[in-house]
Parts: sequence; C-alpha cells; structure tokens
Amino acid sequence: MTSADNQQERLKTIGWVIGFVDGEGSFIVTIFHHPKSRMKYGWQVFPELVVTQRATNLNTLEIIQKVLGCGNICKSKEKGEYGHKEPLYRYAVRSIKDLNEKVIPFFERNRLRSASKREDFRKFAKILRMMKKGKHLKYEGLVKIAKIAQTMNRKTPSRFLKSSETIRQ
Amino acid sequence: MTSADNQQERLKTIGWVIGFVDGEGSFIVTIFHHPKSRMKYGWQVFPELVVTQRATNLNTLEIIQKVLGCGNICKSKEKGEYGHKEPLYRYAVRSIKDLNEKVIPFFERNRLRSASKREDFRKFAKILRMMKKGKHLKYEGLVKIAKIAQTMNRKTPSRFLKSSETIRQ
Repeated sequence: MTSADNQQERLKTIGWVIGFVDGEGSFIVTIFHHPKSRMKYGWQVFPELVVTQRATNLNTLEIIQKVLGCGNICKSKEKGEYGHKEPLYRYAVRSIKDLNEKVIPFFERNRLRSASKREDFRKFAKILRMMKKGKHLKYEGLVKIAKIAQTMNRKTPSRFLKSSETIRQ
Repeated sequence: MTSADNQQERLKTIGWVIGFVDGEGSFIVTIFHHPKSRMKYGWQVFPELVVTQRATNLNTLEIIQKVLGCGNICKSKEKGEYGHKEPLYRYAVRSIKDLNEKVIPFFERNRLRSASKREDFRKFAKILRMMKKGKHLKYEGLVKIAKIAQTMNRKTPSRFLKSSETIRQ
C-alpha cells in the first residue's frame, strides 16, 4: 500500500466509525442513586458511550476502540434481541477524561449524520460541559442534567427526577 | 472548501455508508411463491438491499441513496421496534441491474467490517452471480439458492425449501 492508499483507508475507517456509531452506538447519561455514598445528595451522574454487538462482530468494537483510542470491551450481561445464545459484547467509554479529550472532540470533528444520534450527542456534550463546571454537584444542576438526560435515547423518566418531585412536595 | 477537503469528505462519506450498512442494513434474498405466474415452478428469487429508519433519520437513507446512486425510499408498513408511532422509512435496491452494477461493486471496493454482514454480503453476491447464469430458472439451482438464502440474516427455513421437501417425498 502506498501512503496515499493508507490515508484513503484511514479516512474511510473514520467514516466507518461515524456510520457504525450512528447506527449502533448510544450516548447515555444515567443518574444513579448511591444512598450511602459520599456524593452530595447521593446521586451520581454517569455518562458513557456504548456500542453492543454479538460475539461474531466483536472485531467492530475493536476497530472503534482503536480509532477513538480509549474505552473497554467486556462481555455483556444483557441478552441478545432475539434471545439467542451467542454472548453480547459491550464497548464502553466511561472515563470522564477520555469522553472529554477523545470522544467529544472526535465527534465534533466528524459529524454524526443521523438526526437523532446527532441530537443525543449534542445533549451528551452539553452535560459533560456542565459537569466540567461542577454543575452536577449542586441540586439545581442535577435536576437540569436529569431533565436533559431523560430526553435522550427515548428514555422513560429517570428515578432521580421522580424522587426529586417527591422531595419538592 | 478546497478540493482536498472535498476529497476527504467524500472518503469519509463512503466510510460512513459502509459503517451504517454494517449496523443497520440487510442483504436479503426472499423466495416468493406465485402459483399463477409464468415463472417456472411458480417461485421467484427476490434479492434486495434494505435499510430501515424512523422518519427522524430519513436523511441517512438519502445519503445512502446518493452514494450508491440507486434504490428507492418509501414509507414502510412495518411497525417500529418499540411500537412507537413515528413512521418508518425503507430504503431498498431491488433492481437486479442496480444490484449487479452498483451495489455489489461498491461493497467489493469498500469492504464491510462486521463479520456477520460481510458473510451475508458474500452469500448475496454469490446468489446474484448464480442468477446471472440463469441457475434460478432450474429446479436444482432454486434449491441451492434457497439453501444459501436461509442461512442469511439468521432466518427461519424458507417456505420454498419446506415445499420442495414435500415435492420430493
């Protein structure tokens, strides 16, 4: 391969990662309750980029891991969509540092093309910016983040928001 | 944009199509029964490349259509996976000429990366080569094609093979 071929292949692989994440990836923000933790209010904001595949396609997760230069792959506890027996693998980036320094810049340089995934990513990046400013450590910020998070991935209302309604009443 | 930027964007878009089809596309071969048709034995081999998306992401299907230079997009009769009310759109290439002259050469030049989709594509291209040679017009060829087709997309056994068993008995 010449270096021009290499460069072409590299660009196609970057494009491939965008397309595969557009189809199969999820930008998720979960808000966990740790009643006994040292976290203020006992709630923790937990953002992650996740891609799940069955074992046959494990190689796709390895490509994404290599291109993004971060994240871990592990066997998932979830069951496959058809209840088939082939194990599922889960690629996830959970490190806030990697999300801020690698994942977000990558998808800012390389725009997702599907309208819904792009919107999820926009909200995901916004929550990470809020966390950088420490907004998630205050009650108001937590509520704001939870309200954004529950509009992502067509989710059901979050446990945190339900419980914060209880607190207000 | 300079022409180098354009070239980079073009390569990324090609990569994006590979990645999105790896995640969301299906290479399908259906064998339909037309008892009253003029087809020999009343069975028709029907290969297609299909990508389905909800309305929000209609733009993704338009990108694929533009890059592959063929296929049609129409509102699907299928229901969304979560039974949500947003309509689904279906991009499909059904023209044998377009499959042979556009789709297959594209994915031969631009290799799918997921092991399972690549295997489906290999079988799909093989069936189209068999059809080019007219194999689907003879009983033996039909059985061969049906046997390959039923190993694609984790499908259940085809009606044709079940009925050909009946004929043999």
